[in-house]
Order: sequence, then structure tokens, then C-alpha cells
Amino acid sequence: MNGLFMLDKVLEAKERLRGYSNLTPVMTSGTLNKIAKANVFLKCENFQRTGAFKFRGAFNAISKLPGKAKSRGVITYSSGNHAQAVSLVGKLLGIKTTVVMPDNAPVIKFKATAGYGADIIEYNPSEQQREEVAREIQEKSGYSLIPPFDDPDVIAGQGTAALELFEEIKDLNYLLVPCGGGGLLSGSAIAAKGTCPKCKVIGIEPEAADDAVRSFRTKILHSVKNPPTIADGTRTASLGKITFPIVLEYVDDMQTVSEKAIMDAVKFLFFRMKLVVEPSGALGIAALLSGAMIPEGNVGIIISGGNIDAATMNMILNS
Amino acid sequence: MNGLFMLDKVLEAKERLRGYSNLTPVMTSGTLNKIAKANVFLKCENFQRTGAFKFRGAFNAISKLPGKAKSRGVITYSSGNHAQAVSLVGKLLGIKTTVVMPDNAPVIKFKATAGYGADIIEYNPSEQQREEVAREIQEKSGYSLIPPFDDPDVIAGQGTAALELFEEIKDLNYLLVPCGGGGLLSGSAIAAKGTCPKCKVIGIEPEAADDAVRSFRTKILHSVKNPPTIADGTRTASLGKITFPIVLEYVDDMQTVSEKAIMDAVKFLFFRMKLVVEPSGALGIAALLSGAMIPEGNVGIIISGGNIDAATMNMILNS
Repeated sequence: MNGLFMLDKVLEAKERLRGYSNLTPVMTSGTLNKIAKANVFLKCENFQRTGAFKFRGAFNAISKLPGKAKSRGVITYSSGNHAQAVSLVGKLLGIKTTVVMPDNAPVIKFKATAGYGADIIEYNPSEQQREEVAREIQEKSGYSLIPPFDDPDVIAGQGTAALELFEEIKDLNYLLVPCGGGGLLSGSAIAAKGTCPKCKVIGIEPEAADDAVRSFRTKILHSVKNPPTIADGTRTASLGKITFPIVLEYVDDMQTVSEKAIMDAVKFLFFRMKLVVEPSGALGIAALLSGAMIPEGNVGIIISGGNIDAATMNMILNS
Repeated sequence: MNGLFMLDKVLEAKERLRGYSNLTPVMTSGTLNKIAKANVFLKCENFQRTGAFKFRGAFNAISKLPGKAKSRGVITYSSGNHAQAVSLVGKLLGIKTTVVMPDNAPVIKFKATAGYGADIIEYNPSEQQREEVAREIQEKSGYSLIPPFDDPDVIAGQGTAALELFEEIKDLNYLLVPCGGGGLLSGSAIAAKGTCPKCKVIGIEPEAADDAVRSFRTKILHSVKNPPTIADGTRTASLGKITFPIVLEYVDDMQTVSEKAIMDAVKFLFFRMKLVVEPSGALGIAALLSGAMIPEGNVGIIISGGNIDAATMNMILNS
């Protein structure tokens, strides 16, 4: 994977997203700066359309499909923010969307995804793998597959969030990015190294789902299975074929945070900054507040999303 | 009260607040615009220092005290956002602050106020009135009283939120403002009429605490006692000697919203806009979503604050 080539793709994605994605705000907090002894800039993708950065990658990948592929439709597998993103992009661009979801997914996720207009195909996760279910349908239907993270166009789209942050805050010493499958982290690292090479890019992962940290340290791909973390956006089994080499090449370090640190971060964002942030979205703040990371200078943090249900928020606020 | 004179005071307050208050963001939502069939602009004072617009009025009033008064210190009575605002302003300006609070106020409010450094004097609300307790201490100590709303400097400070909104969104047809004691509503109306005279200013109050609506309609001051509304910022007994005539002169209309509409608005702001907003702060959204107000064109809404405790948010999210 050629870095300069990929930066071009992020810049192109930015043009493609213009007028469709939200230019999300960069928020700051005097209290946070004091605690962190740094100048912290939060890129608030919880204010992105569908409540998460996933809109960027889905839009970039779908909008650049050839006309014929668009008229056939797209398919994806996801029970989370990528499903809603694909569904909304389909609605905006008039493209039929199909989403493969486990039959035990929370009703609220079905509703949110179906609410934007996607057809939902359920499968039994104890008997089938989501990728296989999607591939079978894809072969019959001719739908284009829009993977949740392991795709150059998806990665390029996700990179536009960090790109916007670097355009607004020119000089960052650190960028902390949540890591699940590595789509956001890869795109962010490409944007960082392309626009502000001195900035150190750090991926943050829950301790309970530390496959990417282990993969990063050993340079061998590790995986986890249904890891018991509240940060549901990071429960992916492993980095991907495309994201793993990008993470190895462009990410400076990876750190883990505890479940308690994640919940404390969600609470801090709620009570002190009045931001609704989902557990996966609070990983960077968790690293700062827990001392897992002690960065100096100007520190960018990608707040990846804000889709949290009432039960989870109640549990966290009472913890 | 002379309107032009008061606009000057708001403009002066803006200069005084420069570098101290947050220039809070104006947020929008495609979903909200669709539901409201209007272009809605939220002035997010939940992102103001101490989590509410009250910082503006407290800072303006305290910072313009003469040097001798500053060295003696200030006193106020409040169990809510004004207490925290006065306490923080005292800390920032190096002025001793004393806050009179009912002895049955929630521990979290004591902590938040004391956390900024104020001395707290407790009183028994079934035996004493807070104004009297404050006045007694004031007479002995020489402290300057900073009232929560019925004061020209406090009103002028609160008006700077609307002033900033008009500077950013030049052309508003409506401005919806929560109303408790009328400090924010008075200041907002002065800013509106001074900078965008065609803009209709509407005060929004809970049905359960509709003293200001009745006062507005009858032109006779009505009051309520401990009204049973979840919007704790609007539980004030009545408009004040200064705010009542300003509301009569500059406010175009007043509307009430139900408790259910308030809770639905807090939920909408949480789930759809990822904003933590306290019930009083959600009154304008409650009016829009419930249909109590059906304004057209460009609609400004002051989101007055975001200080909500875990129990109240849990209750609302589960409602």
C-alpha cells in the first residue's frame, strides 16, 4: 500500500463528501486541558450523520461505484454504525441497500437501520458467518459489497475526519484514535502522516479486545472472539488484510484502556462536556484520563460516535 | 427601562466577557429541520462554562463592581446554575463568594458550587426565605448581592448569548427562549429587538410553572410556589420587578409545554443530536416537537444549559 497514493484517496474522498457529510465541530475543555496538562482537541464525529464517522467511509465507497453497480444495489454485514451509514447513503443516493445482521442484534439497531430504508437479512450467528451469508446473496444478486473497514475506499473516507481536524488545528503533536477493525485508525494515520508528519498517531483499544495491540507489537495478526468489552464498536475479530499493514506502517504506537477507564470517560464527556459519546468513541479520552497516555503539547482525539442506548448509558452513569 | 440603553449594556457585556466566556457553538440537525419544517439553529449554552448561560450574567455583574466592592466579596442565593456561575467567576477574578443554599439541596449541587471555591451558607427553606438570609449576611459583611435574574447587569450578560446567535445567523424569524425568572428571556429579547427587530421572541415555560405566561397575558404579576416541573431552572416564583416590564415590552408571545414534551425533547437531543441538555434547556425544542409552536423560516433556540444529574437523565431516557 503506497502512502502517498492513499493520501490522494483521502483528499478525493473529502471532495466527494462535500455537501453530504457534516463538517463536525472540534470541541475543547479547560477542565480537560488542566487534567491532561495538554491542549486537547476533540473531533466530534458523534455529530456526524447517523451519529458516527462510519457515514464517511460508506458514502465514499458507495458514491464512487460505477453507474451499473449503483443500479444493482449494495450489500453489507454489520450490526452497528456501519449498517446505519450504508442504509442512509443508499437513501441519499437512491441506491438499494441490503444489510446482513445477526438475528440476536438489539431491536433498536434493526429499527435504526431499517429506518433509513435498508432491507435487512437476518442470520443465526451460531450457525453461519456474516461474511458468507453476505457473499451468497451477493453472488445471486450482483450487489456490490461495502465492507465495514477492510476496503481502500472505506478507509479513505474515514480518513477525512482526521484530515478536517488537521486543516482546523494545524499543529498537532499527538492524535489518539479508537481502534476496532482499523478502518478509522488507518485512514486517520494516512491523513496525519500526509499533512502533519511529526504528529504521533496512537491507536487506542480496550484491554478486553486487545488483538490490534498484540498484532502491532508482534507484527503477526492476532484475533479475539466476542471480546467482553462495553465498547461494542471495537468487538471486531481482528485488523484486516488492508488495515493491518497500514497500521504497521503509519501508526506510531498502540495503547489499551480498562473497562473502568472507558466508562469514566463516557461519564466525563457527559457531565463535564455535555457530549453524548458511545463507549468506543470515548477510548481516546479514557487513555488521557486514566494516564495510559501522557501526551504533551497539542493533542487531537477522534470521538468516533455517539450511538449509545438508554440501558448502557444508565449503567455507566450509575457506575 | 429604555430599550436602546439596555442594548448598549448587552454590547458592553459582550466586550467584558471576551476571553472569559465560551463562544458557544450553533448546532443544526437535518432531522430536526424536517420535523419542524423550518431551519432551526440551536445556541448551545450547555457548552458554556459551568454548563449554563448563567456564567454570562454572573461574570458581567461581578466584573463591573467597583474595586472596593470586589475586595469585600459577593453573595448570592441559588441552588442551581447561578450558584456555580457566581462561584466560578469569583475564582477567576479572585473575589470571595458566598452562596446561600437550602439545606435540602442535592449533595451534587453543594459539591459543584463548593468545588469552585464558594463558601456555602445553608438555611432551612421551611423556616426562612433565601433573600432574607442573604440580606442579613450582606448587611453584616458588606458583600455585594448578585441576584440570579432581577438585575440589569445580570440581564445584560444573559443577553450576550442571543447577541452571538444573531451575529452568526443574521436573519432569524423566531427566537425561542426558556423562561424562569425572565433574566435570559429579557436579555435575549433586548438583543433580538436591538439587532433583528423583525424577529419574534417567544418565551417558553412549563405548563406546571406557567406564572410568566399568565403574567404576560394579564399584564398582572402572577406567581407559583414550588411548581411540580422537571425543569428545575424554571421553578422561580415569578418574574421580577425588572424582568416583568422588559418581558411585557419586548417579548412577542409566551407558550407552555407539558412535562412529557420536555422529557421527549431531552430524549431527542440525547439520541438524535448527541447533546446533554437539562430539562429547562430543552423547553424550546419541546415547543417545536410538540407543536406548541409552529414557526416558519429561520428559528433560533436558546439551549440554556446541560446540568442534569444521573437519576434525572436515567428517568427521562427510560420514560
